[in-house]
Amino acid sequence: MRLLLLALAAAAFWQAAPASHAQPAPAATEIVEKRVFEAPSHTTRNGGTIDNLRIGYQTAGTLNAAGDNAVLVAHFFSGTSHAFGRYAADQPVGYWDAIIGPGRAIDTNRFFVISSDTLVNLNVRDNRTVTTGPASVNPATGRPWGTDFPVVSMRDFIEVQKRLLDSLGVKRLALVTGASMGALQAIEWAAAYPEMIDRVMPVIGSGEVDPWMLAWLDIWEAPIRMDPNWREGDYYAQGREPPLRGLAEALKIVTVQAQDRPSLARFGRRLAEGQDPARRLADRFEAEAALDAAAMARARVSDANHFLYLTRANQLYLNEYASTEAALGRSRARWLVVASPTDRVFMLDYNREMVAALRRLGRPAELVEVTGPLGHLNGVVGMAQVAAPIRAFLAE
Amino acid sequence: MRLLLLALAAAAFWQAAPASHAQPAPAATEIVEKRVFEAPSHTTRNGGTIDNLRIGYQTAGTLNAAGDNAVLVAHFFSGTSHAFGRYAADQPVGYWDAIIGPGRAIDTNRFFVISSDTLVNLNVRDNRTVTTGPASVNPATGRPWGTDFPVVSMRDFIEVQKRLLDSLGVKRLALVTGASMGALQAIEWAAAYPEMIDRVMPVIGSGEVDPWMLAWLDIWEAPIRMDPNWREGDYYAQGREPPLRGLAEALKIVTVQAQDRPSLARFGRRLAEGQDPARRLADRFEAEAALDAAAMARARVSDANHFLYLTRANQLYLNEYASTEAALGRSRARWLVVASPTDRVFMLDYNREMVAALRRLGRPAELVEVTGPLGHLNGVVGMAQVAAPIRAFLAE
Repeated sequence: MRLLLLALAAAAFWQAAPASHAQPAPAATEIVEKRVFEAPSHTTRNGGTIDNLRIGYQTAGTLNAAGDNAVLVAHFFSGTSHAFGRYAADQPVGYWDAIIGPGRAIDTNRFFVISSDTLVNLNVRDNRTVTTGPASVNPATGRPWGTDFPVVSMRDFIEVQKRLLDSLGVKRLALVTGASMGALQAIEWAAAYPEMIDRVMPVIGSGEVDPWMLAWLDIWEAPIRMDPNWREGDYYAQGREPPLRGLAEALKIVTVQAQDRPSLARFGRRLAEGQDPARRLADRFEAEAALDAAAMARARVSDANHFLYLTRANQLYLNEYASTEAALGRSRARWLVVASPTDRVFMLDYNREMVAALRRLGRPAELVEVTGPLGHLNGVVGMAQVAAPIRAFLAE
Repeated sequence: MRLLLLALAAAAFWQAAPASHAQPAPAATEIVEKRVFEAPSHTTRNGGTIDNLRIGYQTAGTLNAAGDNAVLVAHFFSGTSHAFGRYAADQPVGYWDAIIGPGRAIDTNRFFVISSDTLVNLNVRDNRTVTTGPASVNPATGRPWGTDFPVVSMRDFIEVQKRLLDSLGVKRLALVTGASMGALQAIEWAAAYPEMIDRVMPVIGSGEVDPWMLAWLDIWEAPIRMDPNWREGDYYAQGREPPLRGLAEALKIVTVQAQDRPSLARFGRRLAEGQDPARRLADRFEAEAALDAAAMARARVSDANHFLYLTRANQLYLNEYASTEAALGRSRARWLVVASPTDRVFMLDYNREMVAALRRLGRPAELVEVTGPLGHLNGVVGMAQVAAPIRAFLAE
């Protein structure tokens, strides 16, 4: 139990980082292989051109002849394709491994499960993440794109995933799902390709990014924009320092907001070693020092411009529709919405409102709750709790 | 109604700024005078010395011969002494004017009401605010203190207020109250001087600043520490620019967290004029641009070092006690706790836990809720709603 709590705490700090091992893996956990989807050129929704597009992905299970037993899992803000399985026997399992695998709620004996890295993925310096974004080399110049990279929307993420699915022969999605930003992608999918989708399961997501959430995303970005090393995004040249401090501060906001009070309680009000905040303005509490250290470690595998492009993609959620109802109304799927009552990012009310909207529109929709000490992140590390309703949803 | 909503919106943006006029003032609102309390020298709890201490205050009503009909109102994070009355006939009323005045819930025909500016008050450039902090001149050097100013705790605020009350002849407090940081001060008072206090009314406060809240206060500060103009607090010299951008970003976080979803709904997802965030990374939504403009206006009357000292004072809340229960257990008063169910700063649970702790300790304590579209700020601008329970509490 103590080890589990420590693992949960680690996952919380790292925002369930790529190498998350938040849940004990059943013995049968499969080895998965990270593959790369490439496209010589890709046109964004706003007419931008991305040459040499590359996106990492992984699969489990087997696609049937009709191509209609596929499940797509989209990842959260700081996540990667690593939702399930291990990359090697001594490596940790993916963040949703407790519900994805042979005989599990999302049964890989029945379904062909795909998960891919998004465009502008945050984990640029993680060597198992494959993405294309401002830190990638622009083939036209031979140098990193920086802010010349086209602004991309959540819908652009879906279009790249659609090309990947086409390349794999997928015709229908029995389920599209994801946590947090993954939930937003699942909902974009439901609106973009309603004829392809049987079921949608948004976890700790929202049917809208309202002005209050637009403002929070702006707050997340601010430390990067404040960092003198950011230089309006032009920091890739030899001899320049990346804006690590700003990126770490930005990641810290995400981490704290994605958690909840109990997840930091173990620090109490202890002082950082050798420091006394009651006497010196520069001194800190242990909770602050620990969050700073974790955020800086995370910043070292991430990229600041990718962070800014990701927040923008979130701000542009469902931006091609007049309203949330206009988007949801396009869906013909059945919906299972999973929400965390202590979520401080996409609060429970956002999820209740989405379910109410779906029902007004005559779509079958149920809400189930996932609880725990981690607030928003309960939907990343606590999914074993809702395995039964997911199994039932997939059995219908 | 439309004007009232606009005024509420303005108050929300400005965090109910010194010149708040969120509620229509009854005709009888009194003219109040801003006075100054001075002490040649003051020793902080940690042994620091502040010479030439000056703090602004205002009063209404008359102190009785026994000196026991006094009410102390402590202000919130970005507030001042201006809780009630007007400074001139054409000036706005204080933020709690709806519940403080002749015949109102806190009846100035019965009580002598005092409200003072805190140490390290944020509104250094507001010409009605009188405070002492890092932007003040250190008499020993003839230059602003900067970060040589002693770190002060919430308890230090109370000690200065105690000297002010002594100078006025106040012997007992029939009530000590305040919103947000004002609630924390009221609770510090209840623990520090239990024999002086009949009633405590913390509004939108908390019985603890737990590690999660410590982390949020750290997040609030980060943009200031990131601003190259901050220079570790040494920005007062001629020719140096103050860290206005960092301060504005810090104030924006406070503003957004102190509000709630409905308070920004009027912006919808409209784009800032002439901008298109779907095409250019630097472009913004209208909600972001409006929050930036409001935060920068607020930053121009504030001081960045004062912000950092204020957040530290909040982190040092009840730091002289082993626990919240140890502090609350010292109180002999009756308690009325006012909380906002949509509060995103001091969430409802903090308030429920405080009431539960008081009851476990055998102290009489009731919780009443103040609602509205403004989240935390409902406790600043919506207090007319709870006038009746306050009146009953004071009649007991």
